[in-house]
Amino acid sequence: MRINAGRLQESLRQMSEIGATAGGGVSRMALSDEDKAARDLLRRWMEEAGLEVLVDDLGNMRGRRPGREAGPAVMLGSHLDTPELGGIFDGTIGVLGALEIVRTLNDHEVTTRYPVEIVNFTNEEGARFEPAMQGSGVVAGVFSRDYIYSRTDQQGLRIDDELRRIGYLGDAAARPAAVRAFLELHNEQNARLDEAELPVGVVEGVNGITWSEVTIEGEANNGPTPMRYRHDAMLAAARVIDGVDRIVRELDDEAMGTVGRIKAEPNIINVIPGKVVFTVDLRHPDNDRLDLLVERVEGLLGQVCTEVGVAGRMERFWTSQRTPFDPQVIDAVQTACEEIGAGYLRLWSGAGHDARYMADICPTGMIFIRNKDGHSHREDEYCAPEDVEASVNVMLLATMMLAKAEVQG
Amino acid sequence: MRINAGRLQESLRQMSEIGATAGGGVSRMALSDEDKAARDLLRRWMEEAGLEVLVDDLGNMRGRRPGREAGPAVMLGSHLDTPELGGIFDGTIGVLGALEIVRTLNDHEVTTRYPVEIVNFTNEEGARFEPAMQGSGVVAGVFSRDYIYSRTDQQGLRIDDELRRIGYLGDAAARPAAVRAFLELHNEQNARLDEAELPVGVVEGVNGITWSEVTIEGEANNGPTPMRYRHDAMLAAARVIDGVDRIVRELDDEAMGTVGRIKAEPNIINVIPGKVVFTVDLRHPDNDRLDLLVERVEGLLGQVCTEVGVAGRMERFWTSQRTPFDPQVIDAVQTACEEIGAGYLRLWSGAGHDARYMADICPTGMIFIRNKDGHSHREDEYCAPEDVEASVNVMLLATMMLAKAEVQG
Repeated sequence: MRINAGRLQESLRQMSEIGATAGGGVSRMALSDEDKAARDLLRRWMEEAGLEVLVDDLGNMRGRRPGREAGPAVMLGSHLDTPELGGIFDGTIGVLGALEIVRTLNDHEVTTRYPVEIVNFTNEEGARFEPAMQGSGVVAGVFSRDYIYSRTDQQGLRIDDELRRIGYLGDAAARPAAVRAFLELHNEQNARLDEAELPVGVVEGVNGITWSEVTIEGEANNGPTPMRYRHDAMLAAARVIDGVDRIVRELDDEAMGTVGRIKAEPNIINVIPGKVVFTVDLRHPDNDRLDLLVERVEGLLGQVCTEVGVAGRMERFWTSQRTPFDPQVIDAVQTACEEIGAGYLRLWSGAGHDARYMADICPTGMIFIRNKDGHSHREDEYCAPEDVEASVNVMLLATMMLAKAEVQG
Repeated sequence: MRINAGRLQESLRQMSEIGATAGGGVSRMALSDEDKAARDLLRRWMEEAGLEVLVDDLGNMRGRRPGREAGPAVMLGSHLDTPELGGIFDGTIGVLGALEIVRTLNDHEVTTRYPVEIVNFTNEEGARFEPAMQGSGVVAGVFSRDYIYSRTDQQGLRIDDELRRIGYLGDAAARPAAVRAFLELHNEQNARLDEAELPVGVVEGVNGITWSEVTIEGEANNGPTPMRYRHDAMLAAARVIDGVDRIVRELDDEAMGTVGRIKAEPNIINVIPGKVVFTVDLRHPDNDRLDLLVERVEGLLGQVCTEVGVAGRMERFWTSQRTPFDPQVIDAVQTACEEIGAGYLRLWSGAGHDARYMADICPTGMIFIRNKDGHSHREDEYCAPEDVEASVNVMLLATMMLAKAEVQG
């Protein structure tokens, strides 16, 4: 039993027209008009597949295909929102892949013991309203509903108002309660599968991620200040930024570190910066080694500040602990790969996903699809149709195992 | 004959109230409402001192005290604009010192052979609109008027529109034509006088200064990208910034280098920067060594870009060659120091000043005032009242020599 790959590609094509950008990507920011149009299309497809669509108070959309037994379902899905100038696969392929599985189960009149549900979580990206992974975060009890409602975008618009505006403010009663298992299909957002020339990733868990903000304060002074009198915050920042890269590479191949945001003050060409603030994003699949990375960067910061004659502090303001996925779900995915003969790699996710929060409340796993050059959150994000087909077939078989399908005929 | 030091301090106090900051400094960015208020106050004081105020098409303000002969004047002045959170002396003391000299000549009914003019040049700082020293630069023929008009601030506002808005867009006919000599009083912007415990600097010339913009382009990608796949523009920028400091310190004690401005794109905490742009301000009293500094930074940039796997370019967009001042003006200043018994040091200016451009078109000199710890472009910039008094008296005597004063009675 296999999915209908042509039908899936056609659905992907139609969905990609909503918020399409000139560069071949999509802009469907959470709760925008484009997000509403994408939700409306999904709702129609879900209804056509015989699913009753439930919308909860966070705007999460869900549809259940009954099993022989009532009770907790095997849930499949991801999100339809994107960052600005994002790609057509990120999130979307997880939702449409889930839909394709329901359609395929319908085609083959498969009965499962447990219900199968598909889900579209609200605002996974956090691009318009921070933080990320809000819909799944509330379901998992990470965020309160009122906290999420109070989040505003750059225009000051609130989430509850925007949910109401687009017609997706539903009932708390519609939130998923107990979940038998959660499985999310996603493009891999780096090049490990591409490099290994393997189509499918069996995801073992989500890396620990921690975010810090480093503030260095020196002395703003003008360009002709002799070098020996300087307390240059930019020089100290440069040495620490270079050092973050060195510390991460020295630890092991699994460590990652990024300095993505920087601000200098007064940021004038002929003034030695008196203050520089930058962020450090550190990731590692091992919590202890993640802490070690933070300690080493802190140690370096202290040393550089002494050398340069400035003051520095590092505030570690957010940490997502390493989250191993459920062994049975991982096994189901790996077994499915072997059964259909799809080449696979076991790996850890470096990024957070809805599955990260769902893992807090139910057995969870993820399937990655090879992504060309690992380019994601970009208009040129690309997964080959044959890789999409293989990975959705893996999800189909894994779902049948988890939901205990009985194939007729 | 001496200046009225109390009157000068009172004028300085009143001027310091315009754009005053909580930290004891001033923010009077060029062509802001604060700059307009400062100009209006100066205009009133100039008129009260019997000067007719001329405003040229760059907004430079000028007032002439006639001599026995018409024709080129001895011009005194500097600028009233400041960077954000700047000090109360930088520029301002040169304008108010010049005003005090006219007031003193009036008090004592001194007739000079040549006219004496005072001037407030537009946008010396270049903090809001780059480059710096625009008013004097157009007068000296360094910049065309249309080039300067087309410069915009970070909000996209043009200089001509802002000059019109604040009522200081005057006539090209009001530009200073021939100038007999130009003399500028300024706080010293580093600690050499303070270290030498001498109140006055006899400035021999201005160091060479060159400004470049470095653009590094890598590949924007998300936080979980393994280190070996990265093309991190921020990492390359950090290594070059660290290297600028090293290159400058290795050359000799007179070299200076500053990275004051930096911008990363997309500047998001969990995205590897795809592009980083920063500036490099290099200074040296020897033109060849200045060029050597640029070459070494360029060489380093190429090497770092290869290491990191990114593309880099360095655009050297502005250079002010080393400029020795006029020996006769320097002599007049030194003689004045000796005559009033003020301790002085002969030195070179590390910073550009309006005098730098004026030196291109007329005999020019500068007088420096001891500046506590060399802290300038800061709210805590400080020159002691007795040092201000001594240096303005030096300017008075030097002006009388250059303008050939005849003291009555």
